[in-house]
Amino acid sequence: MSAPDSDLLSLNTATVRAQWKLPEIIAGCVRHNIRGIAPWRDQVAATGLNETAQRLGDAGLTVTGLCRGGMFPAIDREGRRSALDDNRRAVDEALALRARCLVLVVGGLPKDRSGSVVSKDLRGAREMVRDGIGELLQHAQSAGMPLAIEPLHPMYAADRACVNTLAQANALCDELAPNGKDGLGIAVDVYHVWWDPDLEAGIERAGAAERLFAYHICDWLVPTTDLLNDRGMMGDGVIDLPMIRRWMEAAGYRGMHEVEIFSAANWWKRDPDSVLATCKTRHEVCT
Amino acid sequence: MSAPDSDLLSLNTATVRAQWKLPEIIAGCVRHNIRGIAPWRDQVAATGLNETAQRLGDAGLTVTGLCRGGMFPAIDREGRRSALDDNRRAVDEALALRARCLVLVVGGLPKDRSGSVVSKDLRGAREMVRDGIGELLQHAQSAGMPLAIEPLHPMYAADRACVNTLAQANALCDELAPNGKDGLGIAVDVYHVWWDPDLEAGIERAGAAERLFAYHICDWLVPTTDLLNDRGMMGDGVIDLPMIRRWMEAAGYRGMHEVEIFSAANWWKRDPDSVLATCKTRHEVCT
Repeated sequence: MSAPDSDLLSLNTATVRAQWKLPEIIAGCVRHNIRGIAPWRDQVAATGLNETAQRLGDAGLTVTGLCRGGMFPAIDREGRRSALDDNRRAVDEALALRARCLVLVVGGLPKDRSGSVVSKDLRGAREMVRDGIGELLQHAQSAGMPLAIEPLHPMYAADRACVNTLAQANALCDELAPNGKDGLGIAVDVYHVWWDPDLEAGIERAGAAERLFAYHICDWLVPTTDLLNDRGMMGDGVIDLPMIRRWMEAAGYRGMHEVEIFSAANWWKRDPDSVLATCKTRHEVCT
Repeated sequence: MSAPDSDLLSLNTATVRAQWKLPEIIAGCVRHNIRGIAPWRDQVAATGLNETAQRLGDAGLTVTGLCRGGMFPAIDREGRRSALDDNRRAVDEALALRARCLVLVVGGLPKDRSGSVVSKDLRGAREMVRDGIGELLQHAQSAGMPLAIEPLHPMYAADRACVNTLAQANALCDELAPNGKDGLGIAVDVYHVWWDPDLEAGIERAGAAERLFAYHICDWLVPTTDLLNDRGMMGDGVIDLPMIRRWMEAAGYRGMHEVEIFSAANWWKRDPDSVLATCKTRHEVCT
């Protein structure tokens, strides 16, 4: 399989968030000729929404997604309404940044105000997610901002996202946006879905419905020493990245390849310029 | 839902393996009136197969499973043959111990002789698993020892088991033992499958084919701080254990409930008698 077009590389800003603030990351992308970026809302807030939009525009970067909306389940109606309000603000921020989509990490079991999980009702949480996306979609559609549901690895089902497979994400899209092209789609992150025996079928189904809104890459390390912050650089783990890219392309995906690496013990401790240079090389050689 | 019959509690010996050797664990079960046990092969080997069988028989314990066979994928034919030879020995040991089944943790991506993962071919690994179980099944059937495929959580797909859902396990059984009751079934461990949106359907399908050979319980902690050894005691996490037991019973399962807790930072550091007492109480109150 031929190497991917290097212009398709995008940088999720989490990858160097320990070393740089957002303006430095934007400048780093320009310096390394990385053409896309996906910032996190806390970084945007720290820099200011307008200044961020200005800097992104000046740099000519494609914003492959804003991270993130979601976290819909809550223990009471007030909590769910508060989450929805925050999600509407996230849609508006994504618009201001001209993001291609707002990425949704949908949330896990309902939490109380202190952030503790206080329910074992996974089915109920999944219904809250469906209802929350459905409500948010009305605002997002009228605003013209696509929503990308990101299935998360099953090890995050309790506390981060109870949508854990492409089959679930596809079913949500079928239910909430049955006509396709209506602003609800999927972010495929290899870290979360690489293990799924139905991955190829799920990508194919999403592609046929024009729902492939984003593609995130990194690698799964063996051993993995932390559930959250031990993701690998492409090529350092066991994911067959060229194969999954081939499936994405066969399904019609033509968007960018967003590198997103949470790595407390390794990449977050390195010189960020060398991290970006490594991302570029590995994108070309290993994906 | 009514409390489970306390006579159905079984102890997977991993739960107190840090504190006790196998003879002490057997004595502990007798002392706490725990009627079932599932030992690990290394513990059996340390005590001796014949002595273990004698002690288990004297104690009148039901052996709900022997842990474990599996680990079929290997990088070359010699490695796969060596794995198969070891699995045949495991079948024979299970027979000597009068175990209800040999539990299969099927293995992940192929490793070299040093134990390093050296392949990214997950599909190929799954084929090796299918072929390995198929070969082992001939020996197990003629010996009269049921094999129980245990789907493991997707976070173990790379290094421990590439069978990660009940759907996969059911499909393997359909393919390799299409007639049912032919000695190939499934061990349902809540820790590995609780997140699965298709769990109820998978249990129902397995039950209808009389494939529910074992039921393992513990809990999923939030947060989980270690991928391997941070399992929770029943009631300390987020798994709806009564619901899953109801599904198992509705599917026809009448076997024991095997507590299996890997817990380096907590339960392995406690007085093992208090651990067993807690298992008994929590089994009654929380499952």
